[in-house]
Amino acid sequence: MMTKAFFYHAGCPVCVSAEQQLLETLDRSRFDIHVVHLGQDAAKFADAEQAGVLSVPALVVNNTVFHINFGASLADLKGGAA
Amino acid sequence: MMTKAFFYHAGCPVCVSAEQQLLETLDRSRFDIHVVHLGQDAAKFADAEQAGVLSVPALVVNNTVFHINFGASLADLKGGAA
Repeated sequence: MMTKAFFYHAGCPVCVSAEQQLLETLDRSRFDIHVVHLGQDAAKFADAEQAGVLSVPALVVNNTVFHINFGASLADLKGGAA
Repeated sequence: MMTKAFFYHAGCPVCVSAEQQLLETLDRSRFDIHVVHLGQDAAKFADAEQAGVLSVPALVVNNTVFHINFGASLADLKGGAA
């Protein structure tokens, strides 16, 4: 069974760049990659927070969060600053 | 020919965690991964700076830098604060 990996973003330029380039490097034969746009799918906010995501873009694999570069904090997104 | 990917770190806990877990997700059939410990290989500092690395841990693939979480800035490492 493939391990699920989640890439959280909010559509900002930093996120789009990371999504296109970092996700391309992952081994898709082993990871089932889910891309979640928090700006368009606010229902996933709780999932992201519970996983420990503090900012986007972020990659979550095996309960570990990798905050990549820095686009926007989750707090700012919540406040509608995205 | 495999694309070269460079993972720069400085041995700190943040770096070690990212190295063990993020590198595990990369597709090693397509990427030739070089791990560079800047604390032990200061000669590679210029390479890292030229690639645009501002902090470690960082992954560099196809001329793109991904700063992962935040361990230490290159400026601090240069100053011997590592």
